[in-house]
Amino acid sequence: MSIGFITTASGASWQDVAVDRQRHRDATIAELHPPLPVLLADNIPLNTTSIPDKILTDEERTITGANVEDLLVKLATGEWSSTAVVQAFMRRAGLAQKLVNCVTELLPDRALRRAAELDEYLATHKKPIGPLHGLPISVKEHIGMKGLDMNGAFIGSVGNTAEKDAVVLEPLWDAGAVFYVRTPEPQTMMQLETSSNLLGETVNPYNTTLTPGGSSGGEGALIGLRGSVLGIGSDIGGSIRSPAAAVGIFGFKPTSGRIATRGWFPMMFGAEHIIPTNGPMSTSLAGLKIFTKTVVDGKMWLKVPSVVPMEWRDTSSYFPDRKLKVGVLWDDGVVKPHPPINRAMTELVEKLKKSENIELIDWKPWKHDLAWEIIASLYFADGGKEVISYVESSGEPFRPLSQWIIRDNPHVKEHTIRSLWDRIIQRDGYREDYAALWNETAKTTSDGKMVDVILCPAAPGVAAKLNTSKYWGYTSQWNLLDYPAVVFPVQDQVSVEKYAPYAYPADYKPKCESDEYNWNLWREHGSEGYRDAPICLQLVSRRFNDESLLEALEIILEEAGLPTTC
Amino acid sequence: MSIGFITTASGASWQDVAVDRQRHRDATIAELHPPLPVLLADNIPLNTTSIPDKILTDEERTITGANVEDLLVKLATGEWSSTAVVQAFMRRAGLAQKLVNCVTELLPDRALRRAAELDEYLATHKKPIGPLHGLPISVKEHIGMKGLDMNGAFIGSVGNTAEKDAVVLEPLWDAGAVFYVRTPEPQTMMQLETSSNLLGETVNPYNTTLTPGGSSGGEGALIGLRGSVLGIGSDIGGSIRSPAAAVGIFGFKPTSGRIATRGWFPMMFGAEHIIPTNGPMSTSLAGLKIFTKTVVDGKMWLKVPSVVPMEWRDTSSYFPDRKLKVGVLWDDGVVKPHPPINRAMTELVEKLKKSENIELIDWKPWKHDLAWEIIASLYFADGGKEVISYVESSGEPFRPLSQWIIRDNPHVKEHTIRSLWDRIIQRDGYREDYAALWNETAKTTSDGKMVDVILCPAAPGVAAKLNTSKYWGYTSQWNLLDYPAVVFPVQDQVSVEKYAPYAYPADYKPKCESDEYNWNLWREHGSEGYRDAPICLQLVSRRFNDESLLEALEIILEEAGLPTTC
Repeated sequence: MSIGFITTASGASWQDVAVDRQRHRDATIAELHPPLPVLLADNIPLNTTSIPDKILTDEERTITGANVEDLLVKLATGEWSSTAVVQAFMRRAGLAQKLVNCVTELLPDRALRRAAELDEYLATHKKPIGPLHGLPISVKEHIGMKGLDMNGAFIGSVGNTAEKDAVVLEPLWDAGAVFYVRTPEPQTMMQLETSSNLLGETVNPYNTTLTPGGSSGGEGALIGLRGSVLGIGSDIGGSIRSPAAAVGIFGFKPTSGRIATRGWFPMMFGAEHIIPTNGPMSTSLAGLKIFTKTVVDGKMWLKVPSVVPMEWRDTSSYFPDRKLKVGVLWDDGVVKPHPPINRAMTELVEKLKKSENIELIDWKPWKHDLAWEIIASLYFADGGKEVISYVESSGEPFRPLSQWIIRDNPHVKEHTIRSLWDRIIQRDGYREDYAALWNETAKTTSDGKMVDVILCPAAPGVAAKLNTSKYWGYTSQWNLLDYPAVVFPVQDQVSVEKYAPYAYPADYKPKCESDEYNWNLWREHGSEGYRDAPICLQLVSRRFNDESLLEALEIILEEAGLPTTC
Repeated sequence: MSIGFITTASGASWQDVAVDRQRHRDATIAELHPPLPVLLADNIPLNTTSIPDKILTDEERTITGANVEDLLVKLATGEWSSTAVVQAFMRRAGLAQKLVNCVTELLPDRALRRAAELDEYLATHKKPIGPLHGLPISVKEHIGMKGLDMNGAFIGSVGNTAEKDAVVLEPLWDAGAVFYVRTPEPQTMMQLETSSNLLGETVNPYNTTLTPGGSSGGEGALIGLRGSVLGIGSDIGGSIRSPAAAVGIFGFKPTSGRIATRGWFPMMFGAEHIIPTNGPMSTSLAGLKIFTKTVVDGKMWLKVPSVVPMEWRDTSSYFPDRKLKVGVLWDDGVVKPHPPINRAMTELVEKLKKSENIELIDWKPWKHDLAWEIIASLYFADGGKEVISYVESSGEPFRPLSQWIIRDNPHVKEHTIRSLWDRIIQRDGYREDYAALWNETAKTTSDGKMVDVILCPAAPGVAAKLNTSKYWGYTSQWNLLDYPAVVFPVQDQVSVEKYAPYAYPADYKPKCESDEYNWNLWREHGSEGYRDAPICLQLVSRRFNDESLLEALEIILEEAGLPTTC
């Protein structure tokens, strides 16, 4: 299945395979007409986000400036052709690659053929083929596409061709989507950054000394530059939300039983102790909703029985005649967030305090250190053997953060069935204890109803300096609980000297080693070091409350006067 | 926690503990007023079902002859007091114990106190306390009740007092139920019979040489004698459906995510590879529905997050304007069912063929031998270590069928994480392959809709001779797939010389060792050996189609002219 590929299986060195895959990627970009200009590394500023608009045509700027909900209207009416739209996004994605290294390959052949078919369909039938007619969607590489390489960023797996499209792509395709670009993930897929030996390091479009987060950081960086306005990521510990937060977009990790993951690169299949999920990343809240509704209503459960047959409950009346109750978790009690996050939390809460439609309740952190211990001990129940063997199959070295999360992680050990069951018991106990916390809030609210959602940081800081993303707790907490969680921008960026009131106290005593590490990052780099990094927060709800979570976010943004697009 | 108990922990022999628990059981029955007569073993006929009516009063006969739906009306109006109702059922349950050994303990104190409170409530408020006001419900022993022993039939665990009621009991209690009797399970709970060293062997009320099935065979035998009309069993391989089929009642195993199992005896907690569930056993289909709706609508997911927050969809319009499509699985391709089952299948199918509201589709068996191999290798992923240590803690010997399923089972081995994951991958692959079978049926039906339900045997024969229930495939198949499955009586019993047209062919060649074993059982015992055993069949549907499954059964019974009560 590796015709035309240079692979380690056929004797090439891992370095040669990497060079060949990068050559292939660049070749797909070189197919674009008209060709993109050469960008010299020396001329790329720290903040790259203004560059694409300077290179693209007016039409391309307009198209790539539109969000999902606007694109769908223009595409459905034929005001913009599918071909023009995907062409604009491919050119912008090609530029994004040159700026921040966020593309695995463009798919100009497939995409333009598909777009032409859709244009013809619209011309013939005078109606769109489906609700996503012509919508370009970017896809993280390990989510398989028929006939294309699926390597999971392991160099030894280059040459592994997907036999089918991943199940999640089917309802999107049926609804009229155009898949046009694939995006990288980090080595082992278990990093909150996006760094591999195969494709190198993806960087943050707002500040190239920072990570765009991970593991869906290819999507993050691409969407941050509007080389896509809707992409598919995946999340088992923050991999959708970390990059969404790092680049200031919307990212949604649904409850695990809503969307099929069948058709992914086969890493640790059979491990059901912590369940990953697909989810959307978008420049708009509407983009998240449209994606999730389309996919869920695709009845994937008919093919993949692990998906719960629960249709999308598309209502705007979850909180019709009562206040939305928002628990506020300022700090997880383990790692104190950096000043920009504290400031964003404070400012949003101050705005919400003025709303008559929202009731705020203090949410105390509850053993988030234990939560991390539990999830970290369940991620690699085989002691990391399978992942390590994927890395070692090519001779490529471990990248720093995959070394850190697997080999240097004190919670990773090869379980026996007994020790596995003990951890699962502990996990279920933690989930039940956390459920009890929600139930108890009914005693503290004005009308005896429970808290609906928790507002909290999405990370212990804004986008991190490369290779420093070592604290997963603000996102992995909700994977352990299998809660739906959405990240959203608060329309603000880090700039120098804005954070004095939110600074660490002069006599700050770190709570633990992780807290000290995080504190030192701020002391070393300060606001100047994180200049221009976007600021995001996170909203979470209970298991399967996916629909009402997105409605709650809409209410919060409206009440706070924040936009639902970026 | 073992005050007042003789336990092995405090030095007693396992035999002494068993004697003491049996003494305790008999003492709770002796508390009844008026006392029950002594029944001499020599005077108990093979078929015991007519005996209780000869001993009980007219009122007691009338009350215990009513089904759930009738009891609820009488209780809600006060025509029958809660006290009278539970008193009648306790007396009948006491008799059932004397006839077939199906009681762990009666709870006269608790039950009469509760009933008195309910009677007072009704008198004061002129309305029932809830939809189950005064309804007596029997409970399998391993489903914990606060302050009572919870030993899971392990002698070494006698003295282990439950700290809380099991979560499933809470919505029933809130709705007005009266818990009045607890019923035995077999040693290890992993038998399709009900045999333990603690309480001995439970036998079938219709023929005491036969098993009442298991592991919820205490419930089965009790309900078979109408010592209860609604009981709670549990099922991971057939443990609700086997006893329901053995005694000719209704038994329902829901999809696993619908009902919380928290609060069970802690055997193999953490094992989530095959998930057990609670479910109802009843003398009426309405009993199953009322139970499940009440429990599901109790929102157990608020306490136990592994429960999916899906309310009971109580509609009678799943098949409003189209034919119900019934797949017919005559034989699982591994073990050919005995003639009485073949006859029952044939006669029901013949009746359904005449219905305009039903379309029958042949359902071919698909690798049910592989299905058994997968589930058997996942039941005891620790090689049975935990279960074995529970047995061995008291020095009690293994009973034959627990020896057979654990120690002599070639598929039981202690897994590594790798071999566990490989089996889970195989399980998920099997589930997806089976889903594809359903999807493909759309090509063969008259209107292009898929099959709704599968009609099949509930077991490879009627109630088995003691210690011969070795083929689980007809029920465990649906546990592997996590499909809801319901067993129902076809109002017929085994009698001599009725089965000639359904006999094994003279030149029958068994398909495998299990088939030969089953064939030999019929050759050895014949219809005379199974005299008076009731005959049941099974209906199954896809995951989470619990509500529509019960509606489909109602339609099938109506179309076939079969009653929905027994």
